[in-house]
Amino acid sequence: MNSKRFLPLAAMEKILKNSGAERVSDKAKAALKDVVEDIAIKIAENAVKLSVHAGRKTVKAGDIKLAVKE
Amino acid sequence: MNSKRFLPLAAMEKILKNSGAERVSDKAKAALKDVVEDIAIKIAENAVKLSVHAGRKTVKAGDIKLAVKE
Repeated sequence: MNSKRFLPLAAMEKILKNSGAERVSDKAKAALKDVVEDIAIKIAENAVKLSVHAGRKTVKAGDIKLAVKE
Repeated sequence: MNSKRFLPLAAMEKILKNSGAERVSDKAKAALKDVVEDIAIKIAENAVKLSVHAGRKTVKAGDIKLAVKE
């Protein structure tokens, strides 16, 4: 469980409902948020490293795409 | 690339900046959003299946946790 506040809980409910959930517990929304945020942060950290490695100060889409594969 | 509108692009920028990015291209934000949404949708779909399998109409945190491992 992380304590970051990047993603809205309402978006987690929307994703779960859109995936067929009839009802979603509050803890389920929080759990999905934590997991997804952790994954997003890992990808972002890799992408930043890749942009630095390429001698850039700007993170580009190619950094994200490569970061996902790592 | 998906066309879903679950996660705000501003949150993607925040995550990248928080991970050390000085600047972030618009396409990088969109790329991170697409990747993270796709992952969130896969986890959500698994979690809904697991809740149905358990005879529930409510998705609970345990469904999310188990769904991540699959």
